Amino acid sequence: MPANRNNTRTNPLRDPRDKRLPRIAGPCSMVIFGVTGDLARRKLMPAIYDLANRGLLPPSFSLVGFARRDWATEDFSQIVHDAVKAHARTPFREEAWRQLSEGFRFVQGTFDDDEAFARLAATLHDLDAQRGTDGNHAFYLSVPPDAFPVVCGQLKRSGLAAPDDGHWRRVVIEKPFGHDLDSARKLNAVVNSVFPEESVFRIDHYLGKETVQNILALRFANQLFDPLWSAHYIDHVQITMAEDIGLGGRAGYYDGIGAARDVIQNHLLQLLALVAMEEPVSFEPSQLQAEKIKVLSATRNILPLEDNSARGQYGPGWQGSEKVCGLLHEEGFSSTSTTETYAAIALEVDTRRWAGVPFYLRTGKRLGRRVTEIALVFKRAPHLPFDKTMTDELGQNALVIRVQPDEGVTLRFGSKVPGSSMEVRDVNMDFSYGQAFTESSPEAYERLILDVLLGEPSLFPVNDEVELSWEILDPVLDGWAAGGKPEEYESGTWGPHGADAMMARTGRVWRRP
Amino acid sequence: MPANRNNTRTNPLRDPRDKRLPRIAGPCSMVIFGVTGDLARRKLMPAIYDLANRGLLPPSFSLVGFARRDWATEDFSQIVHDAVKAHARTPFREEAWRQLSEGFRFVQGTFDDDEAFARLAATLHDLDAQRGTDGNHAFYLSVPPDAFPVVCGQLKRSGLAAPDDGHWRRVVIEKPFGHDLDSARKLNAVVNSVFPEESVFRIDHYLGKETVQNILALRFANQLFDPLWSAHYIDHVQITMAEDIGLGGRAGYYDGIGAARDVIQNHLLQLLALVAMEEPVSFEPSQLQAEKIKVLSATRNILPLEDNSARGQYGPGWQGSEKVCGLLHEEGFSSTSTTETYAAIALEVDTRRWAGVPFYLRTGKRLGRRVTEIALVFKRAPHLPFDKTMTDELGQNALVIRVQPDEGVTLRFGSKVPGSSMEVRDVNMDFSYGQAFTESSPEAYERLILDVLLGEPSLFPVNDEVELSWEILDPVLDGWAAGGKPEEYESGTWGPHGADAMMARTGRVWRRP
Repeated sequence: MPANRNNTRTNPLRDPRDKRLPRIAGPCSMVIFGVTGDLARRKLMPAIYDLANRGLLPPSFSLVGFARRDWATEDFSQIVHDAVKAHARTPFREEAWRQLSEGFRFVQGTFDDDEAFARLAATLHDLDAQRGTDGNHAFYLSVPPDAFPVVCGQLKRSGLAAPDDGHWRRVVIEKPFGHDLDSARKLNAVVNSVFPEESVFRIDHYLGKETVQNILALRFANQLFDPLWSAHYIDHVQITMAEDIGLGGRAGYYDGIGAARDVIQNHLLQLLALVAMEEPVSFEPSQLQAEKIKVLSATRNILPLEDNSARGQYGPGWQGSEKVCGLLHEEGFSSTSTTETYAAIALEVDTRRWAGVPFYLRTGKRLGRRVTEIALVFKRAPHLPFDKTMTDELGQNALVIRVQPDEGVTLRFGSKVPGSSMEVRDVNMDFSYGQAFTESSPEAYERLILDVLLGEPSLFPVNDEVELSWEILDPVLDGWAAGGKPEEYESGTWGPHGADAMMARTGRVWRRP
Repeated sequence: MPANRNNTRTNPLRDPRDKRLPRIAGPCSMVIFGVTGDLARRKLMPAIYDLANRGLLPPSFSLVGFARRDWATEDFSQIVHDAVKAHARTPFREEAWRQLSEGFRFVQGTFDDDEAFARLAATLHDLDAQRGTDGNHAFYLSVPPDAFPVVCGQLKRSGLAAPDDGHWRRVVIEKPFGHDLDSARKLNAVVNSVFPEESVFRIDHYLGKETVQNILALRFANQLFDPLWSAHYIDHVQITMAEDIGLGGRAGYYDGIGAARDVIQNHLLQLLALVAMEEPVSFEPSQLQAEKIKVLSATRNILPLEDNSARGQYGPGWQGSEKVCGLLHEEGFSSTSTTETYAAIALEVDTRRWAGVPFYLRTGKRLGRRVTEIALVFKRAPHLPFDKTMTDELGQNALVIRVQPDEGVTLRFGSKVPGSSMEVRDVNMDFSYGQAFTESSPEAYERLILDVLLGEPSLFPVNDEVELSWEILDPVLDGWAAGGKPEEYESGTWGPHGADAMMARTGRVWRRP
């Protein structure tokens, strides 16, 4: 017997066929606040249609739009129709559409209008009676965070937040979850005064991506990776989310927020947590969250901050073959804006596994190309036997988890160059998620919306994670706020010189992904 | 600074350009005994032409054929010409051919003919004078092993084995290096009575293959693989050399020899040594050999032998789409032959690194497909966090070094199946040697012949390795000799049932490569 065959602990009483059935949500509705916004049209409506088209929504499922616009339900239906036609991933089937759209309702009103919420309550009540949504309702707050308190207050006042026994009410909120630790705590307090924490679903759409969930499978389903996954062999980790696009048209959301709050606080720190955490006892949400919280609690900024962080603001340059202006000339941005469009920080994770291994997190707009990846860069192998060969210096191995766009895993290692001498050159070994599986990946919002309706919170960060992330980021942001203007970098390059200098101090370099 | 940057020990005084110059043999000749044979025509002559065509032979290089045939040098030249046209890898260039063929000579004679060896000595003397081969001569014994003693004796008697100061004489011998430990020792004694061990080059053409040499680069140029390379994580190792062809026309060589002597004793045990050995201080031949000898000294048969070995003889069946006969009906084989065409053995390597890890070696004719590979099969990962998921049992990771035909490396590991549940399925990650490098791989015989002329013995097994290999194999062969007929297996399948049973006893299975 192979040594650990007995460790598999398969439960002979469990029928594996049960688990292979697709998970279909039970009777319910979803209410979207901010239904006229960009996110609702580009992501939420298409995702709901795709779920319905794939048979994962119950026949009773109903979608209620709430907005100020003076629409009838038919107008709302037309908006959803156009959004689905433009952005859905699955083919448009008239039958699926007809069944889904029968559950559409629109409630006109503003957030401070008690009457409107009374109408919303009546609408949901009618749906329970007419379509059998059974008292189960999710409220998707696709609205700016300053509107959270009033909407939550209205949901409480109108009795919508509190379910009857055996039913559920859930609230879905989008980032930003505050703009620093203090505001995040206040926001959490407001939301939790209406909805208990287990009913709060904070969307970080990165956690809905297949490649992000695959981090858990790679690490814990294999014997191959875990032995390497520590300070013994890893020199440092680079977590990168680079975008090539700029911020034209997004000043209202972005100015004063910046790259660190927009991306590092949520996406990149969540990726760090998944890469650095210890093995959970199971993939139950509480176990996963406990491990993520443990690792975020052990995560600290490498000091001094000014040597271990970098920020920049894009100047003029190129986006592909198109000449583009700098941030200060983008529509809506003040010409004195100090908002950073590039941010990099260096962290250490003070656990036995990771002590001494820097984690470098960076994100930026108008960089060389759109790519998100996690690279574990290995220590160099001892060069000893290669001393008298053609290889002067051995490269550093790397294990790269490619999150997007070309999802997969790359292993970089040294191989002998063909020929009669011992020369070693770095080569890549690739695994492509898209080529390996015929199953199509659910889009992140599909996965997450379905999880909300199923009450499956694994992929949603909880209060503690949000607050721990702000604790990590706040000192950096404070330093930057006191430090004047960010360094300008040319659009289309890989960021400010300060970011390269930050790495060069320890003899390292950023990857050019 | 990354932690072990200082370990690279690059010598700043060394000019790397020096090492990148191709290594060209100095003035010399090569004499081939058995020049009318199959190996000479299909491998040796084309390899010599290819080396010349690539500019790796000195202008003085001369090739002397020795055989019983009544040929003139022109006839010999025509035979080489035809062999080159038929089998060379590089294009035929008239100029390269003309220069090479000017150095052709043919000496007619039998091995017991003292006069013939006197003529050979005179021919080499003339070449030294006319073409500047400078007293450096290699003797390639492409002859049956029972002819080694007489040829070596003649070389000694005629003074050809002993070089003047500052020059060299080398002898190249082909397997089989004996048929058991006793005969191998006798053969070694005969050869070493004429040539000192450092002048003896035993060809194992597998060691000339790029992928085999790449085992050293993979293991020792990388930080990624070594931590996994031990009993801590590896469940067992499978080393396979499978051929789809049968033995029609090869009875003279093969009958009475069999698969274990033909392949396991040399190729597979050498592959085992390269996979299992510790890191050498350098790639100097003496260091490499010391490590290989160490690991072969620690290699033992797993007992009882009858449960840990298997043999078979192919019966009728299919080779691809062609119906083929069994061995007993192949031309030249006796209908009572007990020669095995399939052999599998189980070994353990009694070192700290490998204790408890079985190494399974198998080889056979008329198997499902032609493939040589080394598979390190990992222990299963603990299943714990996957208990309540869709994955009932995790697979075993594998690192596969593909020696031929599709040279490269494959990593097999579990990945999440796209979808909203945690289901893990095995996937492959591939590195293809041919796709990664534009440099063409030298053919094994090119590499090895050049190494002979350069006096570079790294890739040639020494006496001790040969004898240690027989020590491992002898008890198995003795058991088989006492055991009657081998089990018949159907041509085109993966061998006898006994081989599967041998693995099944420990709950393992052979890979289907």
